[in-house]
Amino acid sequence: MAKHRFTPTRYHNTLGTAEPCLHVSDGDTVVTDTVDASGLDAHEVTVASRPNPMTGPFFIEGAEPGDTLAVTIERLTPSRATGWTYSPLAVSVLDPASIPDRPKVERAVWRIDNNAGTVRLAEPPPGLEHFAPAIAPMIGCFGVAPPLGQAFSTATSAQNGGNMDYRLFAPGTTAWFPVSVPGALFYLGDGHACQGDGEIVGTGIETSFEMEVTLKVLKRSINWPRGETADDIFTVGNARPLDQALQHATTEMSRWLGEDFGLDARAAAHLMGQVVRYDVGNVFNPAYTVACRIAKRWLTRA
Amino acid sequence: MAKHRFTPTRYHNTLGTAEPCLHVSDGDTVVTDTVDASGLDAHEVTVASRPNPMTGPFFIEGAEPGDTLAVTIERLTPSRATGWTYSPLAVSVLDPASIPDRPKVERAVWRIDNNAGTVRLAEPPPGLEHFAPAIAPMIGCFGVAPPLGQAFSTATSAQNGGNMDYRLFAPGTTAWFPVSVPGALFYLGDGHACQGDGEIVGTGIETSFEMEVTLKVLKRSINWPRGETADDIFTVGNARPLDQALQHATTEMSRWLGEDFGLDARAAAHLMGQVVRYDVGNVFNPAYTVACRIAKRWLTRA
Amino acid sequence: MAKHRFTPTRYHNTLGTAEPCLHVSDGDTVVTDTVDASGLDAHEVTVASRPNPMTGPFFIEGAEPGDTLAVTIERLTPSRATGWTYSPLAVSVLDPASIPDRPKVERAVWRIDNNAGTVRLAEPPPGLEHFAPAIAPMIGCFGVAPPLGQAFSTATSAQNGGNMDYRLFAPGTTAWFPVSVPGALFYLGDGHACQGDGEIVGTGIETSFEMEVTLKVLKRSINWPRGETADDIFTVGNARPLDQALQHATTEMSRWLGEDFGLDARAAAHLMGQVVRYDVGNVFNPAYTVACRIAKRWLTRA
Amino acid sequence: MAKHRFTPTRYHNTLGTAEPCLHVSDGDTVVTDTVDASGLDAHEVTVASRPNPMTGPFFIEGAEPGDTLAVTIERLTPSRATGWTYSPLAVSVLDPASIPDRPKVERAVWRIDNNAGTVRLAEPPPGLEHFAPAIAPMIGCFGVAPPLGQAFSTATSAQNGGNMDYRLFAPGTTAWFPVSVPGALFYLGDGHACQGDGEIVGTGIETSFEMEVTLKVLKRSINWPRGETADDIFTVGNARPLDQALQHATTEMSRWLGEDFGLDARAAAHLMGQVVRYDVGNVFNPAYTVACRIAKRWLTRA
Repeated sequence: MAKHRFTPTRYHNTLGTAEPCLHVSDGDTVVTDTVDASGLDAHEVTVASRPNPMTGPFFIEGAEPGDTLAVTIERLTPSRATGWTYSPLAVSVLDPASIPDRPKVERAVWRIDNNAGTVRLAEPPPGLEHFAPAIAPMIGCFGVAPPLGQAFSTATSAQNGGNMDYRLFAPGTTAWFPVSVPGALFYLGDGHACQGDGEIVGTGIETSFEMEVTLKVLKRSINWPRGETADDIFTVGNARPLDQALQHATTEMSRWLGEDFGLDARAAAHLMGQVVRYDVGNVFNPAYTVACRIAKRWLTRA
Repeated sequence: MAKHRFTPTRYHNTLGTAEPCLHVSDGDTVVTDTVDASGLDAHEVTVASRPNPMTGPFFIEGAEPGDTLAVTIERLTPSRATGWTYSPLAVSVLDPASIPDRPKVERAVWRIDNNAGTVRLAEPPPGLEHFAPAIAPMIGCFGVAPPLGQAFSTATSAQNGGNMDYRLFAPGTTAWFPVSVPGALFYLGDGHACQGDGEIVGTGIETSFEMEVTLKVLKRSINWPRGETADDIFTVGNARPLDQALQHATTEMSRWLGEDFGLDARAAAHLMGQVVRYDVGNVFNPAYTVACRIAKRWLTRA
Repeated sequence: MAKHRFTPTRYHNTLGTAEPCLHVSDGDTVVTDTVDASGLDAHEVTVASRPNPMTGPFFIEGAEPGDTLAVTIERLTPSRATGWTYSPLAVSVLDPASIPDRPKVERAVWRIDNNAGTVRLAEPPPGLEHFAPAIAPMIGCFGVAPPLGQAFSTATSAQNGGNMDYRLFAPGTTAWFPVSVPGALFYLGDGHACQGDGEIVGTGIETSFEMEVTLKVLKRSINWPRGETADDIFTVGNARPLDQALQHATTEMSRWLGEDFGLDARAAAHLMGQVVRYDVGNVFNPAYTVACRIAKRWLTRA
Repeated sequence: MAKHRFTPTRYHNTLGTAEPCLHVSDGDTVVTDTVDASGLDAHEVTVASRPNPMTGPFFIEGAEPGDTLAVTIERLTPSRATGWTYSPLAVSVLDPASIPDRPKVERAVWRIDNNAGTVRLAEPPPGLEHFAPAIAPMIGCFGVAPPLGQAFSTATSAQNGGNMDYRLFAPGTTAWFPVSVPGALFYLGDGHACQGDGEIVGTGIETSFEMEVTLKVLKRSINWPRGETADDIFTVGNARPLDQALQHATTEMSRWLGEDFGLDARAAAHLMGQVVRYDVGNVFNPAYTVACRIAKRWLTRA
């Protein structure tokens, strides 16, 4: 259970079958640096190009196609004092008829105050002078190599993870990804200091991070990313339209309730029908993201 | 500010321009009975036919086209000790390829225990013997007459409200509907003793209720239903696919932030981008429902 | 088999359960006038309000819920020399990111030359000076009262027909609608002198018409509109997104091949898989329209 | 303008940046063999694995990122006497509620009779004993390497082409693809002896082919695949839902009318509004395909 400190020197704009940056053992922890969505590092120097440059890939010894990679997000520490967002709202979340009236796209800077634990617009518009939500760090894009020798842009997401932009990929969460190649080839980056549901301005508060993750191989198969927090389990579907993302996530959750919690399809439906929660990861990227979430207090491992 | 006790003798399967059952004044409170989605009343007698038989319409004096009807949900009391649901999961929330494998649709009975404050399956399948979520009453279907002399089935929803099946239409919430006809013509029914997001088994726990609502006329215009709880404001879009419902709700929220909270389109985007929450009302009915929600602690009325 | 000449004095903006304008017998023919989408009659006088004012409803003796109304379009004659369209392309058919760059919506006038058999822009922009497609008259909106006492705006469409804006609803075509109320209550209007697929500028060439239709009652049930031309049979689905409209139309065609042409689900699939054609009616209205079409030369009535 | 005869020895399941199988000059013609969707060659021997094994990639000298590759389909000759399809209809084209009733998926064999010029089911079900549509060969999957070092499964399609399953990719058509890497890296395969719109049984009549194509480099940029037949020009969008595929195709056509035919956005809309045709390529694959088509008789090159 070694802990590795890895400093990247190159970055990737696809999740694919690239040369590993580091080999680690099953159960090891990695501490590494990530740059922001536009390639700016901790010194606000551009060291990589868009979209969403990734650190990695990490080769996890023992991971084989058909396995699952469990990634525990131990810590996400912003490595500089500023982040940025776009405004106004993205065209994907607006009534099309209202799009011509929206203002031009601009980039805004946010101050990340680690002492206060808040983010604030550097130049707040009227009405937002006191707007200072808590820092709520999350990983926007991470995942493993997809099957078939494919390679997907880090702008999008699929069964192997990718640019899901889901708030609950946050410290304390363990994310599961389906392994398709030997070593899994795990990538991570695109950290956000804060983000509402849907990434509806096209960004979270984009900044560079020091990220710490623990990587474990599970000898079991999954179809779509899954996750576990202190309170919840969840499954993630990535597709367009949102309906299809929700179908993937819901079907995967029903499967999980059968595999680990002893509920057949009918029992799973009775439970989910009363307690399921849906979260919208992103509704901006080429594939949208929906999470299907259930509080663990309703569940007993079989 | 009178309080009326109204006992319905007929029910409606559309929201349209029907003969009012009662005229009330602006600000009055109505206590009335609703039957369940299949027309069963408090005595489990079928007194109306599907879909979702509505009590009403109530004519609110002074409500004119272009106004807004504010409906405060004062109290929702189940009026019998049983409700029912369907299983398994609805075809609309499953990967189409998995549909052939799901079991047949069956109806299940739930015990509504007002003393314990819980609902329980009458015949729980293995693994759900102890499953007893809290009673969380909500209105599945309510709203006002649509414009143009239209009349919509209570199976669906639109800008006038209808079958939205959203959990936050619960006691303590005030819902707003756009008025299209003199008197607004307000209908309500389809109460659920409990329901997760999405109404993904095709029902909540369907039962009859005594409902108490206060009806006020606001001399302002809205495009889509809005709501306010103790903690949040929210807007509601009803359409297919979910993407379009989300677009309606998001655009309406941006408008609201401008009207009442002094935020222009860019400022609204900065706020929403960090703190917005999306909820899925239903993903089962002909129109799906998405709510765009913001905590009131982020807002100051202008 | 009488032929009626009916001159309307009022128009309808919904398909619903209105007072019949005329009672006709099963098999009768009706010759009547329709106004354009904005209510302009043959004299370019505004006699009705938007959207799509309908002539009707005609009560067909003997039509009962569960029957089918067959409407043969005998003749569609433009009743004035001008029509109008919008430009540019509707937001519903454009990449959302390109919407801010499109020019403002304008209304253009077209000359309808019955002698030449063509339509021409009154003020053609550069490059379209010689653009004169053939007059190809079609009915934009027609159908029958929906079930349950519902009434739908003539801006949209559903299982009862409505604003489908499909090119093949043209002279020589017989359209079928599912009857939900006694007498069927048939409405028609919104004639177009010409229109491409999709009604992608938000209009066809909108003008007033003299329309002649023959109305027959079939003692059989259908779920969605169907049609027959000299060469083809087709089914029509109305919904959003297009995927769902296509699913309705395809499922209805498979059913039809079983009912009338002796093909079970597998045989219908073998045939449709090789020869089916899909047409896009509209991709502009609240419900989109897809037709599933098969050439009659592949079919033998069972 | 050399003509090359290339016999493949390996096949690819992605469109990506693989080692070229052959370098050809701008304007050269290639004659080569393709295997069917499941990897069966002209001798019905399995020589490659699913999905859609591709012949290629061909490196075209002089092709640079930002250019366009024009692929003229000179000839498509089935290289064996049988092909296969699935039945029944795919779940993607059926009302979800009707899916449980469809029969199980089976594979059927078709006889390809080059003398008669027809295809016939080897074991026709009742009603299809005489069903023998004409051989209408087409390319199901072809295209070039995508940008960013991505690699996409040949099950799907995107801006670089791929598995579009569009009938008009047939002999006589010239298809255009946007070049993203030096040499373009052109792949082809997945030939169909016949196929209706939508590939609605999940296959065309899948068989092996000898294909002959001419490859030219155009020093111009496009965003989405384009094509030209004897009668029409067309653009192709690949996405889900169909609405989005249609938006891509329509936007690209409007652009093309400006670039080559002297029509600004408003004039393009006037033309397209009256004469556009939409075709559905596939409504089965992960990305659906819609073509936007205009007859050349309406156009004058500027």
